Amino acid sequence: MNIVLLSGGSGKRLWPLSNNTLSKQFLKLLKNEHGEYESMVQRVMRQIKMAHPATNVFVSCNASQADMLQQQLDAVETIFEPSRRDTFPAIVLAAAYLYYEKNLDLHETFVACPIDTFAEDEYFQLLAKVEALVSSEQKKIGLLGALPTYPSEKYGYILQNKGTVTSFVEKPPCDKAEKLLAEGALWNCGVFAIKIGYVLEHARKYVDFDSYEQLYERYDNLLKTSFDYEVVEKEPSIGVVSYGGVWKDLGTWNTLTEEMESTSMGQEVLVSESCSNSHVLNMLNIPVVAQDLQDMVVVASHDGILVSTKQGSSFLKPLVEQIDLRPMYEQRRWGDYRVLDYMQAEGSSSLVKRMHIKAGEALSYQYHAQRSETWIIVNGDGVVTIDGNTSEVSAGSVVQIPRESKHSLFATTDLDFIEVQLGTGELGEEDITRIIE
Amino acid sequence: MNIVLLSGGSGKRLWPLSNNTLSKQFLKLLKNEHGEYESMVQRVMRQIKMAHPATNVFVSCNASQADMLQQQLDAVETIFEPSRRDTFPAIVLAAAYLYYEKNLDLHETFVACPIDTFAEDEYFQLLAKVEALVSSEQKKIGLLGALPTYPSEKYGYILQNKGTVTSFVEKPPCDKAEKLLAEGALWNCGVFAIKIGYVLEHARKYVDFDSYEQLYERYDNLLKTSFDYEVVEKEPSIGVVSYGGVWKDLGTWNTLTEEMESTSMGQEVLVSESCSNSHVLNMLNIPVVAQDLQDMVVVASHDGILVSTKQGSSFLKPLVEQIDLRPMYEQRRWGDYRVLDYMQAEGSSSLVKRMHIKAGEALSYQYHAQRSETWIIVNGDGVVTIDGNTSEVSAGSVVQIPRESKHSLFATTDLDFIEVQLGTGELGEEDITRIIE
Repeated sequence: MNIVLLSGGSGKRLWPLSNNTLSKQFLKLLKNEHGEYESMVQRVMRQIKMAHPATNVFVSCNASQADMLQQQLDAVETIFEPSRRDTFPAIVLAAAYLYYEKNLDLHETFVACPIDTFAEDEYFQLLAKVEALVSSEQKKIGLLGALPTYPSEKYGYILQNKGTVTSFVEKPPCDKAEKLLAEGALWNCGVFAIKIGYVLEHARKYVDFDSYEQLYERYDNLLKTSFDYEVVEKEPSIGVVSYGGVWKDLGTWNTLTEEMESTSMGQEVLVSESCSNSHVLNMLNIPVVAQDLQDMVVVASHDGILVSTKQGSSFLKPLVEQIDLRPMYEQRRWGDYRVLDYMQAEGSSSLVKRMHIKAGEALSYQYHAQRSETWIIVNGDGVVTIDGNTSEVSAGSVVQIPRESKHSLFATTDLDFIEVQLGTGELGEEDITRIIE
Repeated sequence: MNIVLLSGGSGKRLWPLSNNTLSKQFLKLLKNEHGEYESMVQRVMRQIKMAHPATNVFVSCNASQADMLQQQLDAVETIFEPSRRDTFPAIVLAAAYLYYEKNLDLHETFVACPIDTFAEDEYFQLLAKVEALVSSEQKKIGLLGALPTYPSEKYGYILQNKGTVTSFVEKPPCDKAEKLLAEGALWNCGVFAIKIGYVLEHARKYVDFDSYEQLYERYDNLLKTSFDYEVVEKEPSIGVVSYGGVWKDLGTWNTLTEEMESTSMGQEVLVSESCSNSHVLNMLNIPVVAQDLQDMVVVASHDGILVSTKQGSSFLKPLVEQIDLRPMYEQRRWGDYRVLDYMQAEGSSSLVKRMHIKAGEALSYQYHAQRSETWIIVNGDGVVTIDGNTSEVSAGSVVQIPRESKHSLFATTDLDFIEVQLGTGELGEEDITRIIE
């Protein structure tokens, strides 16, 4: 079987833990059976590998998620979208990748799934049944539908007759949803089994291509729409496999905290006995004190602090979209960094970071047009290169890097250092010129 | 008139804004008539100077408050307690100071008042009437009593008959408090008019002294108890002046936020329209998002984050007392500092501060046994001295100070710099040896 996991959006609804570089599917908030925290990405991959040990798994995602994927998954094959569009272009790109790059046949079936599904193992076992609907030539499209447990207004519904899909209803009002439940409708899980050739035919309505590179270059000509809307809703031959277990969208604090074992997370959380049904997550190294909270969620991270009722946490987007703050914490291929201080003053700005480079990794050889940097090594050993000259550094070393000076840092052991940037303007992540040698 | 303002405790109940070096009376949270934020100390001093322009005002406080007082009040005369005890020792020390150091007569009267009273101007005008009860020899002690507006269980009550005090009741249960209100009892405002000689007589029961220095040295021999308990409750000749205006203890977030004009404070506070009767105070430079809050208070500072119902905020002490964190922000004589990062690892610790020195001020000449320091100047000009050698520094300068090296920094203009400390153990404020030359 070929499975393509679709890794999408930025997930502002899980702010302040999720941001543009750390989408919700990468947050390690739920525990696996060994009691270790894992992300949604890691959970889904673990469940797929367990259900189908021999299957080929690909991840379709934006290039900005590459470092995160590499950190969280061992050697997974990625299909990078040239830009963020929607599920129709993403699935087309995946089909083209499988055909042109992996040399699969046009008649081969693949299964596209969301990467952030919260479901039981049975759900992932059923992917084989969904695939069989199409590979057996019974249907053009195979879907997976979850038995609804309540008349949700947030989900899409599949109407069916003995496994054959008759119609779709998207996010109905509550009374309509109740009727749908009575009629045996299923929640649409966003799983699609389709043939490679079938998808490529749909794509050629919008764009001509004879290679993966051509499609990649012309990606923006593909309609920015969902695969449901562009393909599924127009197809008469669709089958659906029913799934009766737990299936949830953990995209809001309200639904996510329901699945968290512990009501507090972080080093320094002090919750009074008078609190009930409340969750406090603290990623900062200062204490959080919670007194008398009922049905609330408190989340403190380097990007900000959220205090909300659980119910209200589904409606954060408009407030969070007003925030215009640079990322204060990022995980990278080489390690991670935290912004400790940022001051923008007329004519002179400063930014202080705590950086961590993993043993054997390095910052790329680069220079900055707008800023000088000073590094103070706190822990570990490494090798600094400045304008071609290398030297060893260790705890206590101070390295001064003038504006325009080329520099890199290789970590011999795990390496921590404080970086002080001085310059003008915003001191953003954009002011990096990487030197390829 | 002689007024002694008593500046006490640490005020854990206003955590995380108040801490051991920043007591609640120094927090600038309420606005004056010009719309500028002022502290309780500044407010009370302003009201006293308006009511009694010619009066002598002294502040009795702990030496740790000296820098804050100097920052907030212009040239006020301070009486430093050698250790933190209670109002009886503090008032005795003040009486000794007035007699031995200011050469006042034993028959002179002075008025001792709390420094953190929230009251109308009339309250401060009435201090003259309280004083007159004693200076006219009518009574041994003069008190100020506020007309109660509700049967509080938190305050002390004065029972009186036409201005003569008959008895006291401390923190009665609600039903008893209701009875007291019906009997015309007043809230005890903690104001005492007494003669210097009268107080010194009481002190000599516990300690012999012939000078201020002698009392200062023997301060710990004075009973650690309140002036009410040790003196007032045993005195038959007490008068009380009634005050009918607003009088409040703003010692909890519940009572303090009632007096705040704005429901949010700080740069980056996003409050949804669904919030009601809630206050959000943000001293950090990351955003706080509040959604759906009812009757709550959220306070974020460098020392921690509080989320509580307003009602619950009166019961913070037990939770806050569990916190064992070094101060993360302090105002000092020379400026202020903020801790940006603190890591304690086996064998090596690091601490990063952002420091601000006011133009014309200097860090004292000092050295550290346990740590090296690196300074990166961000803004401004100054003069650094290291082991006797001076040099000028400005934005971009990097200064390395090895362990045991003597160093100081004078700010020619307002000066900002980042300090990175590397060493072992706790990297506390205690590891400073100041050199007196």
